Amino acid sequence: MKVRSKMTVNELIAEFGKSGSFGAGRVAEACDIYERMVRDEECTILLSLAGAVVPAGLRSILADLIRKRFVDVVVTTGANVIHDLLEAFGGHHYKGHWRTDDWLLYKYHTYRIYDIFVPEEDFIKEDSNLVKMFDQIAEEKKDYEFSSNELMTEIGKRIDDSNSIVRSAYDAKVPIFVPAIRDSEFSYIHLVHMQRRPPKPVLKVNAFKETLELVEILKKSSRIGMVVLGGGVPRNTIQHSAAISRKGIDYAILITMDRPETGGLSGSTLSEATSWGKIKPRASKATIVGDVMVVFPLMAASILERFGDKFARSREL
Amino acid sequence: MKVRSKMTVNELIAEFGKSGSFGAGRVAEACDIYERMVRDEECTILLSLAGAVVPAGLRSILADLIRKRFVDVVVTTGANVIHDLLEAFGGHHYKGHWRTDDWLLYKYHTYRIYDIFVPEEDFIKEDSNLVKMFDQIAEEKKDYEFSSNELMTEIGKRIDDSNSIVRSAYDAKVPIFVPAIRDSEFSYIHLVHMQRRPPKPVLKVNAFKETLELVEILKKSSRIGMVVLGGGVPRNTIQHSAAISRKGIDYAILITMDRPETGGLSGSTLSEATSWGKIKPRASKATIVGDVMVVFPLMAASILERFGDKFARSREL
Amino acid sequence: MKVRSKMTVNELIAEFGKSGSFGAGRVAEACDIYERMVRDEECTILLSLAGAVVPAGLRSILADLIRKRFVDVVVTTGANVIHDLLEAFGGHHYKGHWRTDDWLLYKYHTYRIYDIFVPEEDFIKEDSNLVKMFDQIAEEKKDYEFSSNELMTEIGKRIDDSNSIVRSAYDAKVPIFVPAIRDSEFSYIHLVHMQRRPPKPVLKVNAFKETLELVEILKKSSRIGMVVLGGGVPRNTIQHSAAISRKGIDYAILITMDRPETGGLSGSTLSEATSWGKIKPRASKATIVGDVMVVFPLMAASILERFGDKFARSREL
Amino acid sequence: MKVRSKMTVNELIAEFGKSGSFGAGRVAEACDIYERMVRDEECTILLSLAGAVVPAGLRSILADLIRKRFVDVVVTTGANVIHDLLEAFGGHHYKGHWRTDDWLLYKYHTYRIYDIFVPEEDFIKEDSNLVKMFDQIAEEKKDYEFSSNELMTEIGKRIDDSNSIVRSAYDAKVPIFVPAIRDSEFSYIHLVHMQRRPPKPVLKVNAFKETLELVEILKKSSRIGMVVLGGGVPRNTIQHSAAISRKGIDYAILITMDRPETGGLSGSTLSEATSWGKIKPRASKATIVGDVMVVFPLMAASILERFGDKFARSREL
Repeated sequence: MKVRSKMTVNELIAEFGKSGSFGAGRVAEACDIYERMVRDEECTILLSLAGAVVPAGLRSILADLIRKRFVDVVVTTGANVIHDLLEAFGGHHYKGHWRTDDWLLYKYHTYRIYDIFVPEEDFIKEDSNLVKMFDQIAEEKKDYEFSSNELMTEIGKRIDDSNSIVRSAYDAKVPIFVPAIRDSEFSYIHLVHMQRRPPKPVLKVNAFKETLELVEILKKSSRIGMVVLGGGVPRNTIQHSAAISRKGIDYAILITMDRPETGGLSGSTLSEATSWGKIKPRASKATIVGDVMVVFPLMAASILERFGDKFARSREL
Repeated sequence: MKVRSKMTVNELIAEFGKSGSFGAGRVAEACDIYERMVRDEECTILLSLAGAVVPAGLRSILADLIRKRFVDVVVTTGANVIHDLLEAFGGHHYKGHWRTDDWLLYKYHTYRIYDIFVPEEDFIKEDSNLVKMFDQIAEEKKDYEFSSNELMTEIGKRIDDSNSIVRSAYDAKVPIFVPAIRDSEFSYIHLVHMQRRPPKPVLKVNAFKETLELVEILKKSSRIGMVVLGGGVPRNTIQHSAAISRKGIDYAILITMDRPETGGLSGSTLSEATSWGKIKPRASKATIVGDVMVVFPLMAASILERFGDKFARSREL
Repeated sequence: MKVRSKMTVNELIAEFGKSGSFGAGRVAEACDIYERMVRDEECTILLSLAGAVVPAGLRSILADLIRKRFVDVVVTTGANVIHDLLEAFGGHHYKGHWRTDDWLLYKYHTYRIYDIFVPEEDFIKEDSNLVKMFDQIAEEKKDYEFSSNELMTEIGKRIDDSNSIVRSAYDAKVPIFVPAIRDSEFSYIHLVHMQRRPPKPVLKVNAFKETLELVEILKKSSRIGMVVLGGGVPRNTIQHSAAISRKGIDYAILITMDRPETGGLSGSTLSEATSWGKIKPRASKATIVGDVMVVFPLMAASILERFGDKFARSREL
Repeated sequence: MKVRSKMTVNELIAEFGKSGSFGAGRVAEACDIYERMVRDEECTILLSLAGAVVPAGLRSILADLIRKRFVDVVVTTGANVIHDLLEAFGGHHYKGHWRTDDWLLYKYHTYRIYDIFVPEEDFIKEDSNLVKMFDQIAEEKKDYEFSSNELMTEIGKRIDDSNSIVRSAYDAKVPIFVPAIRDSEFSYIHLVHMQRRPPKPVLKVNAFKETLELVEILKKSSRIGMVVLGGGVPRNTIQHSAAISRKGIDYAILITMDRPETGGLSGSTLSEATSWGKIKPRASKATIVGDVMVVFPLMAASILERFGDKFARSREL
């Protein structure tokens, strides 16, 4: 492996590929697999988001990839949506220090996510905006039962921030699934909305409605690609949907710090998913053990360099 | 630290406490905190389950702790419920080997969870039983919108297996919350149920309904204890509910292999949760970095030894 | 898996073995392998020590296992010997807290090892005692070139503490190899000794002399067992010696938190060592991902229960 | 954080610094600290190498940094030297696959290091070359007691490969310390050399001689910088030498996957070292949790970009 001054990110990845082993070799392999997914016009690319990737700074990169349709479907934790919208409503994530006294932060109404600080008032502003939005949506579509995906569309069309993941997905017609939407600030927002509404109609979210929506997308796809940042519920939802739609995943990239030996899904090998029919036995697979915040921007820059800044994929689901 | 022949588990934990550092010291501390939770009659003890703890063998231990009310509320992934019910319907988890060829397993209709094998036919049996149960429940309570917790109660009363977590919880009046119920085999079961039913009524699960149920329990509790096996959605749901119920957690035990530096919730320190008002600044806290399957049975045996096999807590929520 | 009040540690391990997966199954397997090593009279059992296991409290347990010859050869970091001798010279390891301000500790002359505190004065006392011992040994055996093992024997016979690993090994005729002896307080002690001595003779330690000693032991052994706590240099030394003595290891137990993907020896699989001829292809092997301080006492108590407190192995190297 | 096509590695690092958190923020910080070390003409920069970084592909990058004196002192495991020399003698490291059958590899005389394959014959060639070199050196300097550092100089001047770390260090007058030299193929080479020599003189390596050499370098340094790849003996040797030379480290960068909770030195925080007087309380410090093979090339490319390809530091020790 050689490095030199002014080398581009993709040139570094090429060095990783030619002569690097361990993590370096795997990152290069993952970039190649992602490139092949993007080139494959029949492939539906699903992005799985868990962990605090939005507060930590991946927001614009992800919004950009969605707009270019390097991502066709997003499956995410509620928290990443909440932090995306927090910025859309004018809130901020600040760089702090992980060793700050948490009791002090509490007294100063500042929430901590490792080395990120978020002022409570930004959450209050977001809560109030989203409660109003929920009221509005409930008014417009009385008694309608939403899937998490439909709710994201409703929110996406109401916000105005081109760096937002939710707005970008709305613009690019990329569905966003939030299988554990209840496990996030959305549950508090819904609670406030609900307690203020009676006797007016309340927004309803049907826990299972999105299943069919996601399965239908997969059934219509010739090939399925999965890019997992983290693990958790979003990874499982994609894999499980691939199994029940009887398709199986063709390309799989996993970036995680979890390990297989303790048996959790997040750290399980991509190979294990083959025994369940979730990932095809001959799928192109790469697992990278590392910090998403270091590895994914590296991959994204490499991929953009391969296609050029102007290239965009077009794909109908 | 000394060990000797025929020492009981709690005697070993006492050695951990007196003279052991690192993980040993933390396990001993966690046992002491758990003991204090159990002794505290005003404390609601919430158990958070993520990772494949039920298939891996904690099922009977957990059912026993629930029956003795060493646990007052369960918050779990859907998968752990599914694997609990799989055994209740006569299915089995087999000990296999983690290095088996997954493609071969797939051909032999055998699913792998690290070193556990589950025959597909046990899933098929479970699916068919649960679809029927869903039909029945939908018949009985037409158009009713269930919370995940209410659905668990309906299932609990219909199954007959005293080692089952769901049945034990039903018997002991311990609510089970499954915030990401959609992310599990339940979504497939619901899909099959739904597609066969029209024009008959279909079971409805409201994603947000359980929020208020859990918040109400916490609001009525003088003190809150949390025992986290793993992390993920269940840990976040408990912590978030503690914040929005304006209570804050008093006792917290965390057993995980995740680490804080990559910023995910599962690996975040218990202290971080204090900045959010989720865990009280003076809470009793212990974090153990280790495999739940080794650490938790050790703790359970130690706790049972402290109280005797016959002791049971009684607590109304 | 079931637990109950007053169960002994070995009864818990039996539950791990019968019905536990993931870490639990592996711990049970490791205990069975250790039992077989102890029963195998032709097996030389090598214990590899890295990480701060002695300061953290394993000292008496290890000394006891050495005296009973459940261990035939010790290969260790210098630090574990230094901390063993520190207690032999009257020093102590105190339980502190890992979040203490290190600058404050520095000002109060207190060294920290995660949550263990060691007063600087205990090191000063040890340094001074060992410098004198080095003077004495250099006097007695002028110009002799010691191996690390011979030096440990010289030290062992001069100290008087039956809980000491070094003394127990001396009594039980168990050699102690310290391949990286220079990387420890011994290098400072030697420096002080050397700088005060001229023109008197100075203690000489030949870096390579121990190689042959260890290789000879392995060559004479019908079978080789290895119990690795941690990894690092001691693990590599044992494995490398097994290869160059053309024997190959028959039983291998590894307790570590390191992982294979980043390519270091400490986290490498036991299987990888087979490609090098270090571990036999059909060796009995168990790898446990976990904290040595929790797992090893558990295993030791289980093993002692299987053999009874009075049993001791006898073996000539 | 934003990425775009054709961005250079340092531009990506700038993004990490401006807007990235978790690992991204820490990598940026580490690059800044390294830049300051290089600019600081009074700073002695010590590089600590553990893990299979040379076989995995960092060899040329490290040799280049040594030649430019971005590194003033190397402290390494024996294995990294052995693999550097293996290539200098015409051997190769091949990219293989981590899931290959190790028994098969053994039969085909191929050693595996995670996903790297090394033919046994390359080792045989290296062994034979080094045995001859040892013979030669022993002839030339009869009865001389070498430090590991002096031995590396003797080897360095005898090999002819400008990409070699050992040769580059020889050319750039960068000392290489190998505190655990006995724990490597060098011990086998020495064994063969020794067994063939009598009655001719045998090469002697004094385990403790290098201590003073390293301490003297540190004593003469106005400031000390440490860049740790991995951990283990090399990290400890640098830190311990900083303490006994009464200097304390001013700049510290640590790239590791180990974690502090299990108490080993490799995973211990840089702050812990302050309690021992090893790292100054106000030192510039950055710890990156990640794979050295991904993180270090990224850092190296960023640093080279900051200084330009032609810049070289000059420094006398």
